[in-house]
Amino acid sequence: MNQVTMEKIVSLSKSRGFIFPGSDIYGGLANSWDYGPLGVELKNNIKQAWWKKFVQGNPLNVGIDSAILMNPEVWVASGHVGGFNDPLMDCKSCKTRFRADQIIEAHMAEKGEHADAIDAWGNEKMEKYIADEGIKCSNCGAINFTNIRQFNLMFKTFQGAVEDSSTEIYLRPETAQGIFVNFKAIQRASRKKIPFGIGQIGKSFRNEITPGNFIYRIREFEQMELEFFCEPGKDLEWFAYWKEFCMNWLLRLGLSEENIRFRDHEAEELSHYSNATTDIEFRFPFGWGELWGIADRTDFDLKAHMSQSKADLSYQDPTTNEKYVPYCIEPSLGADRVTLAFLADAYNEEALEDGTSRIVMKFHPALAPFKAAIFPLSKKLNDNAQEVFNTLAEHFNVDFDDSGSIGKRYRRHDEIGTPYCITYDFESVEDQCVTIRHRDTMEQERIKIEDLVAYIAKGLKF
Amino acid sequence: MNQVTMEKIVSLSKSRGFIFPGSDIYGGLANSWDYGPLGVELKNNIKQAWWKKFVQGNPLNVGIDSAILMNPEVWVASGHVGGFNDPLMDCKSCKTRFRADQIIEAHMAEKGEHADAIDAWGNEKMEKYIADEGIKCSNCGAINFTNIRQFNLMFKTFQGAVEDSSTEIYLRPETAQGIFVNFKAIQRASRKKIPFGIGQIGKSFRNEITPGNFIYRIREFEQMELEFFCEPGKDLEWFAYWKEFCMNWLLRLGLSEENIRFRDHEAEELSHYSNATTDIEFRFPFGWGELWGIADRTDFDLKAHMSQSKADLSYQDPTTNEKYVPYCIEPSLGADRVTLAFLADAYNEEALEDGTSRIVMKFHPALAPFKAAIFPLSKKLNDNAQEVFNTLAEHFNVDFDDSGSIGKRYRRHDEIGTPYCITYDFESVEDQCVTIRHRDTMEQERIKIEDLVAYIAKGLKF
Ligand SMILES: [Zn+2]
Ligand SMILES: [Zn+2]
Repeated sequence: MNQVTMEKIVSLSKSRGFIFPGSDIYGGLANSWDYGPLGVELKNNIKQAWWKKFVQGNPLNVGIDSAILMNPEVWVASGHVGGFNDPLMDCKSCKTRFRADQIIEAHMAEKGEHADAIDAWGNEKMEKYIADEGIKCSNCGAINFTNIRQFNLMFKTFQGAVEDSSTEIYLRPETAQGIFVNFKAIQRASRKKIPFGIGQIGKSFRNEITPGNFIYRIREFEQMELEFFCEPGKDLEWFAYWKEFCMNWLLRLGLSEENIRFRDHEAEELSHYSNATTDIEFRFPFGWGELWGIADRTDFDLKAHMSQSKADLSYQDPTTNEKYVPYCIEPSLGADRVTLAFLADAYNEEALEDGTSRIVMKFHPALAPFKAAIFPLSKKLNDNAQEVFNTLAEHFNVDFDDSGSIGKRYRRHDEIGTPYCITYDFESVEDQCVTIRHRDTMEQERIKIEDLVAYIAKGLKF
Repeated sequence: MNQVTMEKIVSLSKSRGFIFPGSDIYGGLANSWDYGPLGVELKNNIKQAWWKKFVQGNPLNVGIDSAILMNPEVWVASGHVGGFNDPLMDCKSCKTRFRADQIIEAHMAEKGEHADAIDAWGNEKMEKYIADEGIKCSNCGAINFTNIRQFNLMFKTFQGAVEDSSTEIYLRPETAQGIFVNFKAIQRASRKKIPFGIGQIGKSFRNEITPGNFIYRIREFEQMELEFFCEPGKDLEWFAYWKEFCMNWLLRLGLSEENIRFRDHEAEELSHYSNATTDIEFRFPFGWGELWGIADRTDFDLKAHMSQSKADLSYQDPTTNEKYVPYCIEPSLGADRVTLAFLADAYNEEALEDGTSRIVMKFHPALAPFKAAIFPLSKKLNDNAQEVFNTLAEHFNVDFDDSGSIGKRYRRHDEIGTPYCITYDFESVEDQCVTIRHRDTMEQERIKIEDLVAYIAKGLKF
């Protein structure tokens, strides 16, 4: 049937309470979004699935939750104060703001040319290219751009009662640095030996000039990052291990294989310190886009902090007594972005045999906001059905729905991806069984009430 | 034995990896803290316990996760732009900064006088009192204060490429407003009827002049807030309901009854819009302090947003067709603060029969970072013990510990609050049983391996 589009996802998200425009009653705040009752469950399930497999379930790794506000020296060491810029350019005629690299990339794509590492061009080369090619403002058509200026993407604020450079701090643009500065303290407290990793989930902030595509690129976003520390020389092995691990996580949670691919970075594309980088890309409704960045960052980050802080972040192997600065593999995933991927991948419109159609969100049960919904066939059965609900609610997030026909309730729960709809009917009182209806196949089976918890729990495994 | 002190909590937190000073290798950032491998598990367990009982497990409520960055009009409506100030005062001699209300409160406490609603005094009254009483600088002893100036506690930043008043936004100082502005959208999408509540967990930021007491008062903190909407006139009933509900949550998670109390606000202490307010206070090592604020806020917040945004946030009762602006009960809890309460309450030093002593963190199993630890009695048994570990790891966060004597491993896990230590010995190979040792009683029992999961799961209930 019809294909998924961003419009459909945005509209369903709003009407069913997955995601609302932020500050909506005040006209919003440029591309900010609030997760509604179903969205917060979906996103929490995704975060918990990541934490379960990357932190708790992997004996090599531990977790951390570091502060968003950090000593500004951190961002000097990481290079964000000096180099975390976008090339900004305004149209003087209509005041529209652009990123020069994006203008060039779009222009090249139109000409069928391959855009290569425009980030590295420098202002002059970009200005010259735009002038030579006679690129016009996409909004008003004028050729009347300002010069390019480099704009730092970190949000600044002031801590303390005085607003000057001495109290200026930043909202972190990534969670990774909170891991690096705690590397030694964590290694000591957890008595971990190399190789081991530290995982973190938390908010980061980037003052993007052109946020967009719903929750794909937002200024306030949540990251799920692992920094995995290993012996130098063993980094490419571990890089391969984590590539595979990440891909498996996505597949086991039900993302369609045809919508995911690896894109290995070419040598000229790599950061100077990186031995290897791969993106896992997802086929979003607007095209292929980066989902997960997996990078071999060598010892770049720890060494940068050693040099800036004078702290010793090297590691001594307890067996060989050899001392070295560990290499680091970083799989970095955006929680919002992967939520969008799961939403888009789950979306299906299906024609039904009776000539009608349905929208069904085919989430993996582990990610579905509600694991099950309990339907009393008649209001007379509400009390009995409520008992079933209470039993299940001890274990899972479940819904109780007694309004409208059973068919209507199915449609409602198809649209929000509830994998199991459980109908309590008049026979249930006698035989202590209920009808369980499967979201994707729409098949029904009769099952004992006492077996329900185990049945649903089994479906949640991934 | 010895009493718990803040020093002991801070020191254990650092050495065992609960909580580290933030940005430590750079000399820190005034009273910022990072949750280490055990701390993040403890805090996540607390947050999940709240979410489970206040959102998922309570059929009246739903959840939300709204953005930290909101349209600045929100903070005009809420009164934070105009009135969220601290009275600031500097000692001109030694440059120490004070909150005038805190100086006065401390002075009154010293004289044995009761400090009453100093917040409402105004600058002149405070300045006069400090001068009349001849209050000295607590740092240098001078009587040489500046005048008081009102300092707004919201962190400011700029969104977009220009830094001026048109792009000025704030880091939210509370999560509550994200709920109020979404009230209508959520009510519509979730088809909830009054009474119902909306819960949220998220970071908030306050530029406190005098943060302190470890994670008790920090600038970047996490809140767990419920806004419960009801019919006007029924608010005091619901206020009583939520008071009880909150207290039960704390007690069921094991907080000692003698360390918690209600403190009802007197009429003169109440905000002008509040019909009733209660604090649940906890006996921290530094004294009784506010843990949970529970307030009947009437229709103050929704009406403020209706007036500022012109949006209609009233509710029409589907049965009576009566239209009204709902009243709101707000139980507001700091996740960091309650983590500190659980840490302090759990801390015990115990003399043992053999003349030694132990530190033991008596967390409720639901909150303990590790639910169990698996000890092979000998390294020869590692593979077998690992199998038990793998089975448990499917269900719980568990540790595998094979270093040092069993006694040492017990001490280590007592200190981090692991409720069940499971020893796999040579007999286990034959009888498929293990010895389970209980943290608090130190009693041991022999139990079948196949019963372990159910046994531990039972202990997690609260
Ligand atoms: Zn233009
Ligand atoms: Zn002084």
